[in-house]
Amino acid sequence: MAVRECPHIVIVGAGFGGLYAARAFNHAALQLIVIDRQNYHLFQPLLYQVATAGLSPSDIAYPIRSVLRKQENTQVVQAQVLAIKPREHRVMMADGIVDYDYLIVATGAGHSYFGHSEWEKLAPGLKSVTDALAIRRRILGAFEQAEREPDDARRRTWLTFVIVGGGPTGLELAGAVAELAFKVMVQDFRRIDSREARVILLQAMPRVLPTYPEALSAEAERALRGLGVEVRTNTAVTAIQPGWVAVGDERIPTATVLWAAGVAPSPLAHSLGVPLDHAGRVLVQPDLSIPGHPEVFVIGDLAACVDQTGHLLPGLAAVAVQQGYYVAHHILNRIQGRSSDPFRYVDKGTLATIGRGKAVADFRVFRMSGFVAWLAWLAVHLFLLIGFRNRFLVLFKWTWAFMSSQHGARIIIDGAETSSSADTGVEERATGTRGLRGVDHGETCSG
Amino acid sequence: MAVRECPHIVIVGAGFGGLYAARAFNHAALQLIVIDRQNYHLFQPLLYQVATAGLSPSDIAYPIRSVLRKQENTQVVQAQVLAIKPREHRVMMADGIVDYDYLIVATGAGHSYFGHSEWEKLAPGLKSVTDALAIRRRILGAFEQAEREPDDARRRTWLTFVIVGGGPTGLELAGAVAELAFKVMVQDFRRIDSREARVILLQAMPRVLPTYPEALSAEAERALRGLGVEVRTNTAVTAIQPGWVAVGDERIPTATVLWAAGVAPSPLAHSLGVPLDHAGRVLVQPDLSIPGHPEVFVIGDLAACVDQTGHLLPGLAAVAVQQGYYVAHHILNRIQGRSSDPFRYVDKGTLATIGRGKAVADFRVFRMSGFVAWLAWLAVHLFLLIGFRNRFLVLFKWTWAFMSSQHGARIIIDGAETSSSADTGVEERATGTRGLRGVDHGETCSG
Repeated sequence: MAVRECPHIVIVGAGFGGLYAARAFNHAALQLIVIDRQNYHLFQPLLYQVATAGLSPSDIAYPIRSVLRKQENTQVVQAQVLAIKPREHRVMMADGIVDYDYLIVATGAGHSYFGHSEWEKLAPGLKSVTDALAIRRRILGAFEQAEREPDDARRRTWLTFVIVGGGPTGLELAGAVAELAFKVMVQDFRRIDSREARVILLQAMPRVLPTYPEALSAEAERALRGLGVEVRTNTAVTAIQPGWVAVGDERIPTATVLWAAGVAPSPLAHSLGVPLDHAGRVLVQPDLSIPGHPEVFVIGDLAACVDQTGHLLPGLAAVAVQQGYYVAHHILNRIQGRSSDPFRYVDKGTLATIGRGKAVADFRVFRMSGFVAWLAWLAVHLFLLIGFRNRFLVLFKWTWAFMSSQHGARIIIDGAETSSSADTGVEERATGTRGLRGVDHGETCSG
Repeated sequence: MAVRECPHIVIVGAGFGGLYAARAFNHAALQLIVIDRQNYHLFQPLLYQVATAGLSPSDIAYPIRSVLRKQENTQVVQAQVLAIKPREHRVMMADGIVDYDYLIVATGAGHSYFGHSEWEKLAPGLKSVTDALAIRRRILGAFEQAEREPDDARRRTWLTFVIVGGGPTGLELAGAVAELAFKVMVQDFRRIDSREARVILLQAMPRVLPTYPEALSAEAERALRGLGVEVRTNTAVTAIQPGWVAVGDERIPTATVLWAAGVAPSPLAHSLGVPLDHAGRVLVQPDLSIPGHPEVFVIGDLAACVDQTGHLLPGLAAVAVQQGYYVAHHILNRIQGRSSDPFRYVDKGTLATIGRGKAVADFRVFRMSGFVAWLAWLAVHLFLLIGFRNRFLVLFKWTWAFMSSQHGARIIIDGAETSSSADTGVEERATGTRGLRGVDHGETCSG
């Protein structure tokens, strides 16, 4: 039977889980199709540096075709997958259908606004290159607007940056925005002092990095405060409107709200027709397959997978990578009539960085924070980047930024979304009056 | 009188002309405002490499504030200028007004479609970062579509690239697209051979590079053909429709048409109220001021400026840079009550490159072509880039591409414009049939 002789594997999603699974099939006697809606694998852990103008998109993105070019049993298809039909063994794309013998679903997660989908436009999240460039445009644009704003209150609104969410992404974003405002851009403006900016991190839970040991949370919070970030724990956002966010009865005037709080698994999960957890993740079997379909596997952020102690595995690249390897080898075993042990996550530790030269690390056998943790963070991220070229470019840019306190990607790239008063809530001014918006010449010659 | 003591200078546009003028005012006892609609200076001569995935936007863009950060007499304003009122000495922005004693207008040029503005959507030109990313998206997207296209004729349409215009930009684009198709992407696909692509350069005039010496035109055409580009001179485009371009009675089926033919000076010229030439450029006086307003200067691509022999100066960075320096020093002289000689362009030669390792150069005293000309091209462009960081990054990426035949920025970044069937003219397929769009698994196991 052809199916047994040359099995057809389909992987949907080429993030960490999908891509590492695909690579594990190299040289295997099968036909593999990898489907992604983008033509590149994105190194999401560094996406916040694209948003804060430290890196360019292509530094942390790598064409999927290039990664898999030498893998002759593999086809790459750029397409949007709309649904999966497990009973028919079919993947439904926006413009076509693919059949499979084995399927790996690794489509990850987007943002969750906890039922407030109207917040999405006001408080963009950080999942894609488009998101990162939009956030960069908002942050840099806010400083441009502040420089031209004659009204004190409105200028303060432009110069207030609120980051919602105290997990690793929220901390990294807050730290990077603080560095931009308090270090990188200090000399750039004539009318504002960028150091007057406020960077506020709102965390609904009692501490930042709630999944880390308490001592590291405290250390991370101290480091953030040292960078000039106002950290407010036990503070849940209750409303977001153009021009302000509310926490309880208090309104914080701000033109820039960034969302790093909720994660919503890919809606593709619903089409599998199997039980999901409260967040929308697929409740997988011990071998990461779904109930009733031993040939369909879900890995990465889309899977609700518990470890030996019954804890849900976190949405980390390391988890997705290990699941990708596991599922690929599990399928190869199955094809050869062998069985596999259940999936077991080996926790090698977690890292989070808070601005230049500071990080916290929990390597289980030991913990650390500060500069050495930061060097560990650098090394791990460089190692995980795909390709020598990207590693070299990122290393060079980090070194340059460290030596010069300058960020090289501080350019505002136009996009569909532009930072307008409608989104940011800073009132429109009447136009047509002389000297409007603070572009008077100075009084004295300072040449 | 305040005006005499501390003159107010305004520069509109921070391209080569505007930025080099601004830098020449460093340390002068005056107040300078530089207005640009972007927050960065763009190194346009390398923009085609962003479009063809060799470089990232931030490699060739530099924040204007960073360039001028140490120049204390200078403010930078990011704004759109709508009109100039020379009689009132005022610059009208979308959201404000600035007064001036001296004004330098350096807003450059966009695309001209020779009265066929409906072609713009079908055949994008290359002037901005947004343009470059849109063109990159079209080129890479066409290969993705071809890979999935089961119909032979439609696949050939996706794989046909037409570049309109035989000046330096057209040649550089055609050469770079040919390299992508015939070298860089060769191993990337499974169903198509990217070498089957056709790259066609359409030039209405009798030869490419018509402003260069004839021998160099011939050399450039030979080099293009060597790269696999079909060069068609004396061939004017008569129609562009979704899915094809017409040259006379012949229709060339193509999904990707790129425009490098016409240049339209910035419409701001009209608001000056002075005579323009047939193309819309401002006819400037020998000192680059406009008639009746010795305090208003026009430089760069927006100026129609003739050299000593009565020839119109070409739209080159070198011309704009020299004009910027000249006008700045002319204004400084004027403030100190001194006169200046008329502007005189010193032609140091021109260069154009045609793919990796080939270029033509006309240094007036001698001409050259081939590898040595290409090295000269590299050196000149690296030297003109602003900032060590960008020079280093570009040099590294070029070296990497040269050694590995890989382009690192081969990622498709989403934007407002996406390559759809509506624009490209390749018919939509009915969806829902099995195996549609060529994503069948292969017949045999090739692992």
